[in-house]
Amino acid sequence: MLMKPVCFLSDFGLSDDFVGTCKGVMARIAPGAPIIDLTHDVPGFDASVGAEILKHAVGYMPSDTVYLAVVDPGVGTQRRALALRTEGGAYLVGPDNGLLAPAVVALGGVVEAVSLNNSRYHVHPVSNTFHGRDIFAPAAAYLASETELSALGDPVDMADIEGLNLSGVGVEDGRLSVRVISLDRYGNARLSMMQEELRLPYGSSLKVDTGDGDMPVKYVDTFGSADTGELMLVPDSHWRISLAINKGSAKNALALEVGDTIRLEPVEPGDHGA
Amino acid sequence: MLMKPVCFLSDFGLSDDFVGTCKGVMARIAPGAPIIDLTHDVPGFDASVGAEILKHAVGYMPSDTVYLAVVDPGVGTQRRALALRTEGGAYLVGPDNGLLAPAVVALGGVVEAVSLNNSRYHVHPVSNTFHGRDIFAPAAAYLASETELSALGDPVDMADIEGLNLSGVGVEDGRLSVRVISLDRYGNARLSMMQEELRLPYGSSLKVDTGDGDMPVKYVDTFGSADTGELMLVPDSHWRISLAINKGSAKNALALEVGDTIRLEPVEPGDHGA
Amino acid sequence: MLMKPVCFLSDFGLSDDFVGTCKGVMARIAPGAPIIDLTHDVPGFDASVGAEILKHAVGYMPSDTVYLAVVDPGVGTQRRALALRTEGGAYLVGPDNGLLAPAVVALGGVVEAVSLNNSRYHVHPVSNTFHGRDIFAPAAAYLASETELSALGDPVDMADIEGLNLSGVGVEDGRLSVRVISLDRYGNARLSMMQEELRLPYGSSLKVDTGDGDMPVKYVDTFGSADTGELMLVPDSHWRISLAINKGSAKNALALEVGDTIRLEPVEPGDHGA
Repeated sequence: MLMKPVCFLSDFGLSDDFVGTCKGVMARIAPGAPIIDLTHDVPGFDASVGAEILKHAVGYMPSDTVYLAVVDPGVGTQRRALALRTEGGAYLVGPDNGLLAPAVVALGGVVEAVSLNNSRYHVHPVSNTFHGRDIFAPAAAYLASETELSALGDPVDMADIEGLNLSGVGVEDGRLSVRVISLDRYGNARLSMMQEELRLPYGSSLKVDTGDGDMPVKYVDTFGSADTGELMLVPDSHWRISLAINKGSAKNALALEVGDTIRLEPVEPGDHGA
Repeated sequence: MLMKPVCFLSDFGLSDDFVGTCKGVMARIAPGAPIIDLTHDVPGFDASVGAEILKHAVGYMPSDTVYLAVVDPGVGTQRRALALRTEGGAYLVGPDNGLLAPAVVALGGVVEAVSLNNSRYHVHPVSNTFHGRDIFAPAAAYLASETELSALGDPVDMADIEGLNLSGVGVEDGRLSVRVISLDRYGNARLSMMQEELRLPYGSSLKVDTGDGDMPVKYVDTFGSADTGELMLVPDSHWRISLAINKGSAKNALALEVGDTIRLEPVEPGDHGA
Repeated sequence: MLMKPVCFLSDFGLSDDFVGTCKGVMARIAPGAPIIDLTHDVPGFDASVGAEILKHAVGYMPSDTVYLAVVDPGVGTQRRALALRTEGGAYLVGPDNGLLAPAVVALGGVVEAVSLNNSRYHVHPVSNTFHGRDIFAPAAAYLASETELSALGDPVDMADIEGLNLSGVGVEDGRLSVRVISLDRYGNARLSMMQEELRLPYGSSLKVDTGDGDMPVKYVDTFGSADTGELMLVPDSHWRISLAINKGSAKNALALEVGDTIRLEPVEPGDHGA
């Protein structure tokens, strides 16, 4: 079987056997998977430094890379262990402490996320201090050898992932301000707004500004409720609002990128625009 | 041909070209054999530290691994160069100075042993100072590429293999006496005592004397169970007891060094100190 | 496709992500190519130290190795980026600052050299400060995956390569003093002398001393102009003078090595020897 490459970043240093032991674990599960050591000298416990390095690296790694990132001051506490699948086919494995978030954004956003709580995919006994070896490295190796992400544990709501700040609707100058949190293969932009945060009935009209001025957009219950080529806001299967074009690509039409800010304003009946 | 993985431990460091040169030698003999660097920062010439690391690693490496271990203060003397086959199918290659012994035990014992004295399997010219490159690395690579152990040299009586004992808890004046066997990059001191040798429940209070008199210390299950800055005894990922400070460095705070003797005494409930 | 091994030397250190990023770039272009880290702790910017390490290593690496060497104080200046093919089939990639020269000599001399100026084989955008990632690593990876050297850029005259001092004819005791700069597979020795530096008509007689005393040699226009087994000086396709034996090996007959000094003296008509 052809194994995916694993890009490995940590704060373990190379003086101890931590990195080598994780590689042994991976070689057992995914023999022959190439390991690319990004660096193991992230300053101890500094997830923000690791996050910046990881984000930068994604531009230079193979597109099917499994990122294994362990800078984990919260090991032994209740912080979650995560594995994520991104739009472009890359995977990320690491603690839910913000380490993965900027890389996720650079990789086009999350499309699937699980908590690594299926003990069948752990190395036993699981220590309280070295989840790199016992939980994260095996998860990365299983993903490198084509195990399905969903096997590794229970689904996690993307909005809950630390540091992604996926949720949240701001108000600026009387307008709703949201962000693009991912772009799917059809060009639909998932927004940082849940359906219950929009609070409008289906069929409502709004103005949307993605940076080039106001455009009209309709809030509909399903893709098919808009005309072909029409811009719409539509709840997706996670009850999250997407900006989409029926049978078209909102991403391409509006030059959208993950992280873009989008402003929304309901149009009052009888309001004929700014 | 499918090559076995080689797990490589040494005291060569990574600042020089020693490790890289050994890998070149192996790539010539066993192209494509995966090399797992366990660590190359074993304290110079300290075979007992290397032995402990190697022993621990065998629990996490593929079962068909060839272990190449070179911590070799006796290079150039009459100490033998060994290659061993173990019960479980793993091989070990290294000097006969005790470095391999604990790992051999952990791998289920030796079933075949040879002295690496067949010069046909050496890299020539053989230097007096770098048997890692000229004798050990080629032997590991030949074993990784399915050369028979018996080809590499003459049989050795297993009873003659140098061994040594890392573990050990002494009793002096009614107190437990243990040693610091390593210090990791976070400043945690690994002690010569396994968890099952402590025989106390989590939460127990003890007195610890690292040479400057008694200090209180708590036995906890994980780093997070102590307050920030608090001294603790905690089982590490090797199931070995460490002396540590939560979010601090026990090494720096207590000026600890490898080899230091540390005395421990449980505090009876109601006992209010020395 | 079977990938050639890449032997990687630099002054990047392992504390940052420079080495890991270069490996990501190579994994994209040449997935599965084994990377042998020679060392990344060459003292910063010291090409002469790196050159010595690289030269030593070639004796221990596989014969089809692609050497990627980056110690590059001149990055961002007009120094050239080079890729070289050697007599024995190894390749070298690195800056034109003398870093590669001793290894080239140890590998039997250059047979083809290009400047890495074909931007199709760069990683874009090309930074001003990190040609390791953007120019050198991709070149090494393309060579490891069987891209032709000539695709990577324009040909470079071997005599211009920094540190090789390929050109140059000295005069000692009234004799011409030249060096062997490479030995081809037929045993012909390429000398550090261009045809226009010899300034003799074809058919001239000379005395040659390769270290064991004077021998007669004839300057001819082509191999066929000498008798079988006869020693000759002959211009090659680059107008460089070679010392050769017709249908024989000058290298073997005279025990020649790259770097050997060779002394030449024209024989005047009527001169009957030493």
